[in-house]
Parts: sequence; structure tokens; C-alpha cells
Amino acid sequence: MSPGHEIVSSASPFRGGFFQVEVDEIRLPNGRVTKREYVLHPGAAAVVPLRGRPQDGQEVLLVRQNRHAVGDDLLEIPAGKLDVDGETPEQCASRELIEETGFRAGKLVALGRFFSSPGFTDEAFHLFLATDLEPVAPPPEDDDGEPIAAAWLGLDDAVAALGDGRIVDAKSAIGIALARLREAGQEHRAP
Amino acid sequence: MSPGHEIVSSASPFRGGFFQVEVDEIRLPNGRVTKREYVLHPGAAAVVPLRGRPQDGQEVLLVRQNRHAVGDDLLEIPAGKLDVDGETPEQCASRELIEETGFRAGKLVALGRFFSSPGFTDEAFHLFLATDLEPVAPPPEDDDGEPIAAAWLGLDDAVAALGDGRIVDAKSAIGIALARLREAGQEHRAP
Repeated sequence: MSPGHEIVSSASPFRGGFFQVEVDEIRLPNGRVTKREYVLHPGAAAVVPLRGRPQDGQEVLLVRQNRHAVGDDLLEIPAGKLDVDGETPEQCASRELIEETGFRAGKLVALGRFFSSPGFTDEAFHLFLATDLEPVAPPPEDDDGEPIAAAWLGLDDAVAALGDGRIVDAKSAIGIALARLREAGQEHRAP
Repeated sequence: MSPGHEIVSSASPFRGGFFQVEVDEIRLPNGRVTKREYVLHPGAAAVVPLRGRPQDGQEVLLVRQNRHAVGDDLLEIPAGKLDVDGETPEQCASRELIEETGFRAGKLVALGRFFSSPGFTDEAFHLFLATDLEPVAPPPEDDDGEPIAAAWLGLDDAVAALGDGRIVDAKSAIGIALARLREAGQEHRAP
């Protein structure tokens, strides 16, 4: 926590199903009192499902999600909110991967934890790389009974898709870019 | 816009200084009516300031921002909300770069546009890569009169910082990773 930001008052003008709005009055180091509005969010876990070896050309598994907030269907890596009591981010990522794609990860590696937009929300997402994928169930329907369309994209094509508007979801962009940088580093060590 | 999502009702239970909360009732393709809560946000522009040539070791310029929503000071690329009438994202990025670091970009290249968290907000940020940097002003204070601390990080070190918790801001992570992937591609073509 940054020093010198005493909270003078605090209110919660909106409490929704999974996020709520906070309005704090804070005192700055220079003594001035100002307002900070932000959204409390439970956070999320997201996972980059990767198959293939660097030298053979790797592929990432993406799902198409309807995102009402942006009025579009977006191509994203599998993800879900951290809303199950007692579940770790890693367990959440494993579960969401199976639920959204039907694949189980033989190996899960943490890629990092990021704040989606720290200027106005505390939402953090935990990113994982999933390999040694094994099909354990048919690709299921989402919470609203809509089929989740899953698609394999070449990793290099997925990176290209970050620049041309095909992939516009931030957590997916970080996951794909970090997977590519990681695999690029391993290419030099590949047998 | 995805087909089949008729909006049955709409309300704005919170209108703040720069974001507002919307609650829509929508009808799914299967006929069921469900609720979508989300945050309307003006969007942002962000810029990766890069100096040096790939073969010499490049550096990225970061600023430290107090983020009350997450209770911490974060190391980020320069950025700002799209809240000036008539200003394009590119103009916003140029202006924020000067305001937050004192550097003017001789060259600005678009890296893409991303939704920070499309599950609950329409916030989009436009990312740019800034090169040919020229100092035109001393690093100034932020809106609250607090000094903005700017720091040059080696590009490879900045990529490492994405995995070890030193850089946790999503827009900064995408910007740094895309800059690294882009420069990696150019290394092979460098003289």
C-alpha cells in the first residue's frame, strides 16, 4: 500500500451479482482530499492450452465467448471467475479448461498474475500455461446453455491475431504473447 | 454484435465521474431471460516508449502510478483515459507520453486495441510503440501534484518482470511483450 493515502470516507453505491462499486475519499500526501471510484471484483484464472513441440509448430486452443459488455463474440483463452470457495487459482484454471474445452492439462505452469485495469478495478487474473493435454469430455455448453466453439490456432498465427483485431481480449493477449516468448526461448534449447 | 441477444430492459444504477454501471436483462437464444451487469468506461490509450537498437540492447521507459483500487504503486507504461473531446487515441498517447515522462515520440506505431476485461466492462485500450524519443520537458507531476517517477528498464528485464511480479499491469504486460516479439522479429533483419 502506498503511504500517505488515508481513507477519509468509504461507500458502496452499487452491489451487484459479482462486482461492487466503491467510492473512497482519500487524503493525498499534499493534504488535499479527493475521490477514488473503483470496482471490487473476485478475480479470475485463465489458461493457455498449448499442444505440439516448438520445432513442429505449436497450436493454442481458443474458445468463442459472448461478451455482452462489448456487444460481440470474442476469441479467448479459457478462463473463469474465482468464485468457488476454497478453490485455488490453479484448481480454477484446471476446472475451467475441462469445462470449456473438454481437455485436461497434464502439466500446468504459472505465467504470472496481472491486474486487468488497476486504474478502476482490483480485478486480478492468474495466468497458466497448460500442456500435455488429454481429451476427457466432449466440449460442453456454457452457463447459458450455449455451445462453446473451440478452435485450434497456430501459435504464430495467434500472435499475428493480436495485431490485426482477431484477438482483442487482454488476458488472452498476455497469455499468447508470454507463451510465444517462452517457447521462443526454448527453441534454442530444443534437441 | 452477437445475434439472438435481445435486450429486455436496461438500467444505470451507478453513474460516477468517469464510469457507470449498466444492468441489462437479455433474452438468450434458448429464450431464457438473464441479467448482465457491466461497467461503461471511456477507454484509454497507452504507449511503450522504447530506445536503443535490438543489437545494442533496448530499454523501455516506465512510470510508477499510485493505484488506489489495488492499494499499491504499480510500474506501468504511460497511459491515459480517452476523455478529451475530439482527440484520437494516437494523439492521446502522444500527449500522455509527454505529460508523464517529458519525452516526445518521433515515431508512433499502433500495436493493437484490446478490451481490458470484456466479461464485465467495455473498456478498450489502444496500444502504441513510441520510438525516436526526444526530451522536450522535465518529468512532471501527476494530476494530484505527486511526482511521477520514471525508470528505464532493459527490454529483456521488463519481459522477465512480467513473470516475477514486478510488472502486474495488463496493458503494460501486453505492450512490453508485443514490443519484445516485434523487436525479436527485427533482430534477424538487423544489419
